[in-house]
Amino acid sequence: MTTETICAAYYRGNKSFAVQQARATDPGPGEAAVRVAYCGICGTDMHVYHGNMDARVGLNRVIGHEMSGVVEAVGEGVDTVEPGQKVVVRPLDHCGECPACKRGHQHICQNLKFLGLDTDGAMQEIWTVPAHTLHILPDDLRMDHAALIEPVAVACHDVRLSGLQPGEDVVVIGGGPIGILVAMVARDAGGNVVISEVNPNRLAIAEKLGFDTINPIETDLVSTINARTGDKGADVVFEVSGTQPGVDAMTAVAATRARIVMVAIHAQKPQIDLFQFFWRELQLIGARVYEPEDYEKAIAVVASGGVDADVVITDVSPLADIQAAFEALDRSPTAMKSLIEVGPRS
Amino acid sequence: MTTETICAAYYRGNKSFAVQQARATDPGPGEAAVRVAYCGICGTDMHVYHGNMDARVGLNRVIGHEMSGVVEAVGEGVDTVEPGQKVVVRPLDHCGECPACKRGHQHICQNLKFLGLDTDGAMQEIWTVPAHTLHILPDDLRMDHAALIEPVAVACHDVRLSGLQPGEDVVVIGGGPIGILVAMVARDAGGNVVISEVNPNRLAIAEKLGFDTINPIETDLVSTINARTGDKGADVVFEVSGTQPGVDAMTAVAATRARIVMVAIHAQKPQIDLFQFFWRELQLIGARVYEPEDYEKAIAVVASGGVDADVVITDVSPLADIQAAFEALDRSPTAMKSLIEVGPRS
Ligand SMILES: NC(=O)c1ccc[n+]([C@@H]2O[C@H](COP(=O)([O-])OP(=O)(O)OC[C@H]3O[C@@H](n4cnc5c(N)ncnc54)[C@H](O)[C@@H]3O)[C@@H](O)[C@H]2O)c1
Ligand SMILES: NC(=O)c1ccc[n+]([C@@H]2O[C@H](COP(=O)([O-])OP(=O)(O)OC[C@H]3O[C@@H](n4cnc5c(N)ncnc54)[C@H](O)[C@@H]3O)[C@@H](O)[C@H]2O)c1
Ligand SMILES: [Zn+2]
Ligand SMILES: [Zn+2]
Repeated sequence: MTTETICAAYYRGNKSFAVQQARATDPGPGEAAVRVAYCGICGTDMHVYHGNMDARVGLNRVIGHEMSGVVEAVGEGVDTVEPGQKVVVRPLDHCGECPACKRGHQHICQNLKFLGLDTDGAMQEIWTVPAHTLHILPDDLRMDHAALIEPVAVACHDVRLSGLQPGEDVVVIGGGPIGILVAMVARDAGGNVVISEVNPNRLAIAEKLGFDTINPIETDLVSTINARTGDKGADVVFEVSGTQPGVDAMTAVAATRARIVMVAIHAQKPQIDLFQFFWRELQLIGARVYEPEDYEKAIAVVASGGVDADVVITDVSPLADIQAAFEALDRSPTAMKSLIEVGPRS
Repeated sequence: MTTETICAAYYRGNKSFAVQQARATDPGPGEAAVRVAYCGICGTDMHVYHGNMDARVGLNRVIGHEMSGVVEAVGEGVDTVEPGQKVVVRPLDHCGECPACKRGHQHICQNLKFLGLDTDGAMQEIWTVPAHTLHILPDDLRMDHAALIEPVAVACHDVRLSGLQPGEDVVVIGGGPIGILVAMVARDAGGNVVISEVNPNRLAIAEKLGFDTINPIETDLVSTINARTGDKGADVVFEVSGTQPGVDAMTAVAATRARIVMVAIHAQKPQIDLFQFFWRELQLIGARVYEPEDYEKAIAVVASGGVDADVVITDVSPLADIQAAFEALDRSPTAMKSLIEVGPRS
C-alpha cells in the first residue's frame, strides 16, 4: 500500500477545499486502512467550512466522519476485521487514562480525539484509523445508506438514554438532520412522535416521512400536545433545535417526570424554567455522540429500513465536487443530508 | 370531641399571627384528629409570614406542616391508626383523577392540596387530616426530633432520586435547613459530602455537624473539588441554594454523567450551562416533596440518629409566642430550625 496515491480533500480555511493527490497512510499496529465509499456532511463539518473551528482543525485538514467503506488492509495485531469487510468508523479515540475513561465513559473521555476533526478524516479515498473504531456491516447493506449510520447512532444514543418505552408520547423539538433521525429511531422504538419545527421545507420532509408535525409559530405547541395526551404532556422530549424557544418549549410540553434529552449543543447559556423541574419532577439528560452499542443498534435500524434513508439523503456529489457540494448545502433551503461519494460505488 | 376548645394560631396578613380559641374539627369518615406536639417553621411558612402567599392562603389560615403528634380520635372506616399512637402527617392530599395521579405520581398530583397552606395546618392543638396522610412513629422517638421528619423526608426523597451509591463524591450547594438535612441523609447513605455555603454562621453549623465545607466566595469551589476527587468532580450535586451562582456551580463541579438534583425552588429562570450537559452527559433531576417511602426512610433516619436533631433544632417556643418566634427567626443570623411547641411535651 505504501506507494498508493489517493485523492484527498483538504480544508484550507475561508470556506475552501483543495482536492489533491496524497499518499495513503499504511496501517500501523492496531490500525486498519479503510477504502471510503461515502461520507456525509454534518453540521460540524459546516461549522468547519464557515471557519468557526480553524483553531481546532487548522488549515490543512481532511475532515469528514459520517462514512462507509471497505477494509483495505490491517496493521499488526489486528484480528477483529479483515480486508474486504464492509465497515463504518465510530470516530472516537479515547485516552484510557482519565477519570471518565476509568469510569467506563470512554465516549466522553476528558481527552477525547474526534477523528476527522482532531485527526484527518474520511474525505479521502483511503482512511487509516484505530481498528477498535470499526463496526462491521451486513454484506447486503447499501453503502450510501450506511453513511447515515454515524448520525443514526447519535439518535440511537439519545433514544436509549431517554429510556423510551413503547406507547409513550414523544415530542422532538427541531426537525433538522439530527432531529429527524431521532424522530425515526423513537418511532421505531414504539414512541408516538410529534415533530415541532419552524422551517416549512423541513416540515414538508417530516410529513413526507409520515410524522405528525407542529409549527409552533402558527399553532400553540403546549395546548396541542395537551389535547393529544389528555392533559398529560409528553413523556419524552428531545431538544434538537439549539434555540431559546426550543428550551422554553421543552419544559412546557413535558408530563410529570418526563425525560428531556438535551441533544442540541447550546453554545450560549439559555434561561431554563427550573421551577418546572421542581414542580413536575422533570429530568434533563445530556447526550453526547454514542457508545459502541448505539452503533450496533444504528446498523440494525438502517439495515431494517427503520430509517427512510432515501428521503433523508437529498444530494450525492463526487469527491472532486466537494467545494460545490458544501456551497450548495450552505444555501439550500430543502437539503437534509448531503453525501460525498469518495470511492467506487458498491 | 365536638365540644373541645383548642388554641390555634391564625395568619392574619402583614407579618402577624393571632392566637385564639377555636373548636376542634371532628374527624369525618376517613379522617383522623391528631393532638399536635411540635410544629417546625419552614421556609414556606416564612414566605407566608412575609405576605408572599396571601393569594393562596388567605388572611385567616392556620399554617404549619412540619409536625409531630398523637392520634386523638379517628373517623368512620379508619383502621390504619388508632388513638394514642404517635404519628407525623405527610401533608399532601392528591386528587386521584389527574394524569399524574393515574401514572402513580400522587405527590406531584396536578391538583395537589398541600395541608397547612391550602387547608388549615398544624399550628393548632388538634389537627384533623385525611388518615392516609399519617405515618406511625416508634414509641420511643422524641416528639421534638420527630418534628424534623417532614424536612428529613424531603432530603430522603432528594437522595433517593439521586441514586447515590456509597463512596460517591457529593457536593451540597447551600447549607440552609434543607441543604444541611440533605447533607446528613447523603452522609448517612455513604456519600463523601462537601457543603458549599456563603453564610459564615451556617458554615459554622455545618462544621459542628462534622462536614467538610467550602465558602465559594473565599475558595475556588471547582479546583477544590477537582483536587479532592483526582480531577473527576462530584458524582452527585444537590442545588439547594436557589441562586444563579449555585446554578453556575452545579454544572462546574459535576463529574461526567453526574446527577444534579434540583431541590431549590427557582422562581426566576436562571441561565444554565447546557453545553456542559452535552459535553459531560450530565443529568438534572427535579425533586418535589416526598413519597410515602421517603417518610418511612426519614422516620428510620431520625430514629437512628442519622440526623443530629439537637444541633439542627436551634429554638423552641410555645404556641402562645408564635409571633415572637417568627420575628426572631426572621432576624436571627444563627437559627437553623425553630420549633413551636403546640401541645404537651411527651
Ligand atoms: N449530542 C450530540 O452528540 C450531537 C451530535 C450531532 C449534532 N448535535 C446537535 O444537534 C443539534 C441539531 O443538529 P442538526 O444538524 O439537526 O441542526 P439544524 O440546525 O440543521 O436543525 C435544527 C432545527 O431546529 C429548527 N428550529 C429552530 N427553532 C425552532 C423552534 N423554536 N422550534 C422547533 N424547531 C426549531 C430549525 O429550523 C432546524 O431545522 C445541533 O445543536 C447540533 O450541534 C448534537
Ligand atoms: N424540593 C422541595 O420539595 C423543597 C422542599 C423544601 C424547600 N425547598 C427549597 O429548597 C431551598 C433551600 O431551602 P432552605 O429552607 O434551606 O433555604 P435557605 O434560603 O435557608 O438556604 C439556602 C442557603 O443557600 C446559601 N447560599 C446562597 N448563595 C449561595 C452560593 N452561591 N453558594 C452556596 N450557598 C449559597 C444561603 O446562604 C442559605 O444558607 C429553597 O429554594 C426552598 O424553596 C424545596
Ligand atoms: Zn479518557
Ligand atoms: Zn391528581
